[in-house]
Amino acid sequence: MAASLLSDDALAAYWGDSPRFTVDTVREQSESLFRAFGLSAEEAAIATRPLIAADSRGIESHGVARLRSYAEGFVDGRIKADVPLTVDRETPVSVAFNANDGSGLIQGQRAMTRVIEKAQEIGLCMATVRESTHFGIAGYYAMMASQAGLVGVSMTNTGALAAPTFGAKAMLGSNPIAISLPATDNTPEFVLDMSTSTAAYGKIEVAQRAKKSIPQGWAIDKEGVPTTDPFAFGAFLPLGGDRETSGHKGYGLGLLVDLLCGPLAGASASHQISAAYYAGERFRIGHYFAAWRIDAFRDPADFAADVASLFETLRATPVSPTAQSDRVLIPGEPESAQEAYNARHGLPVRPAVINDVRALCEEWKVPFLLG
Amino acid sequence: MAASLLSDDALAAYWGDSPRFTVDTVREQSESLFRAFGLSAEEAAIATRPLIAADSRGIESHGVARLRSYAEGFVDGRIKADVPLTVDRETPVSVAFNANDGSGLIQGQRAMTRVIEKAQEIGLCMATVRESTHFGIAGYYAMMASQAGLVGVSMTNTGALAAPTFGAKAMLGSNPIAISLPATDNTPEFVLDMSTSTAAYGKIEVAQRAKKSIPQGWAIDKEGVPTTDPFAFGAFLPLGGDRETSGHKGYGLGLLVDLLCGPLAGASASHQISAAYYAGERFRIGHYFAAWRIDAFRDPADFAADVASLFETLRATPVSPTAQSDRVLIPGEPESAQEAYNARHGLPVRPAVINDVRALCEEWKVPFLLG
Repeated sequence: MAASLLSDDALAAYWGDSPRFTVDTVREQSESLFRAFGLSAEEAAIATRPLIAADSRGIESHGVARLRSYAEGFVDGRIKADVPLTVDRETPVSVAFNANDGSGLIQGQRAMTRVIEKAQEIGLCMATVRESTHFGIAGYYAMMASQAGLVGVSMTNTGALAAPTFGAKAMLGSNPIAISLPATDNTPEFVLDMSTSTAAYGKIEVAQRAKKSIPQGWAIDKEGVPTTDPFAFGAFLPLGGDRETSGHKGYGLGLLVDLLCGPLAGASASHQISAAYYAGERFRIGHYFAAWRIDAFRDPADFAADVASLFETLRATPVSPTAQSDRVLIPGEPESAQEAYNARHGLPVRPAVINDVRALCEEWKVPFLLG
Repeated sequence: MAASLLSDDALAAYWGDSPRFTVDTVREQSESLFRAFGLSAEEAAIATRPLIAADSRGIESHGVARLRSYAEGFVDGRIKADVPLTVDRETPVSVAFNANDGSGLIQGQRAMTRVIEKAQEIGLCMATVRESTHFGIAGYYAMMASQAGLVGVSMTNTGALAAPTFGAKAMLGSNPIAISLPATDNTPEFVLDMSTSTAAYGKIEVAQRAKKSIPQGWAIDKEGVPTTDPFAFGAFLPLGGDRETSGHKGYGLGLLVDLLCGPLAGASASHQISAAYYAGERFRIGHYFAAWRIDAFRDPADFAADVASLFETLRATPVSPTAQSDRVLIPGEPESAQEAYNARHGLPVRPAVINDVRALCEEWKVPFLLG
């Protein structure tokens, strides 16, 4: 039987010999860079939160590794500092926000904070955000709600990366869907934070460096033919792969996210975000948020007991002899285990990311703290 | 290049030489059987609607082919006629319903009707339903909302059919998610109606009859090992297949549906529904519904224009040389094309289903109308 994916050994091994720092050190490094990019101290602190959460939870592609791309946005004016989140439309249960080209990291938190307040008051709330920019991990915003005791939902569209079913060209983004349910005394938070494409681009780069083939069903080449050659990569397939293995469902989910974050929010669609990116124009990314109270539907104690029972039953499922894990996991469990381990042992940062942060600190005349 | 999947020839060929009937004939046949099972004329008419919608849209597994399974439920008392849909909890924006073991086909429509009314009034509404039974195609309820001009969401849990990632045994149902957006002058309804497992059991039976292998990634055998042999079928994999091709995302979606329809609604989870099925106990299935107004977020005309533009762009995507379609489709488009074709040419019913309906009519002393 495979080993536990949640053991200290497994969690440590994932990071190899990456240096570890206190969370405070990484936070101060990120905040000082954001201040150099032009954010106020308050905004820099807000923008840093989703990055620390991503690194802590092992979603390193969306942590401090992204500081350089945010710097570029502030430099070319496509991400604006010190802009308000304004309201286009509001009802007791909904808000349509305008992020005014501010950082999605900041405007996303402001929007979700308001969604949570309104949901606490009336039972549930939904919001859209238009004219926004990259907001980091979708899961962060869903977890803002679940950590307030609510169900939380968060989506964003992104530049095109995945082909629609039957298509030969990327038209939809990674377009993630995140949904989170509150932890209980006996259960971890359920956190589903998934792109609606099969995989993320970082995995293509890993395969290229290792000169290894990628799994059948991940991608098509530039002519639209399924490929396992990472150097021939043209676009991802949607979750599910090709039509035979139900990739039309992943395509439907990716398009759903694009419809809610694009046309419903009044923002761009994925294909327009890509075009704007290359043309140097405003990103015009959209987000969709929702939150609702458990007690609108059920006594929270009864809900918690049933969730605990369901999770316990799932974890006791007989394990497949081909599984890479010694038991069935609950969505979010590996990330929560990473977070707990990293809180005890320090936050790991890959050497390549440290080098990039060092270079950024030199460029922006900011003290380098990850030495 | 592949042919159009939406041509009259393709739509007709799908049904082979299945006899076709007027919608009125199939409706009257279904209603007369439901009345024989003990439903009032009004309830029989309501219960028939989702079946006709399923057959019209080419989702034949959930049409009149299911009348026998409903008959069994009414006979053994696990589906009750003439029971009210009652309210456990209600706020201005939410309702927790109890279906009291009534037909999910009927109680689902009553619940969604109330959700639509409340959403029209305040902007959005969510509902759960507990103690329910099989409600047919999830898409029907989402489309009730979209045909009223709202966004509609519908989910249900079902008996276990799919293994969780790393698991060797079915623990989650087909647990479908349906989301539907209103049609506009220029665009079809977007209808995503997807099980969160890779495929449906009917496809295993088709492969068994044809003695053909099933695609890699669909299923595991009874020991939990991936298999392409339909006779070795043990459980489906979740959408995405195994862990390498992101099946953990499909598992997360299936579990999400189980959490909203089970613990949040106060109904059973998938694995309990299966156990109850075999033990002859009450089904205790749960549903989750939501609806919201477009104009809570955006001017509906602007929304419609952006949706039309996005759909037009997607349809113009270059087509993969390996595609089975001459263009990219919008989710729901094939089903809408079937519906339009069948409205013109008559509703097709497979010969095997006609034989089963004939037998039911003899058993229940009801005039047989599909001769």
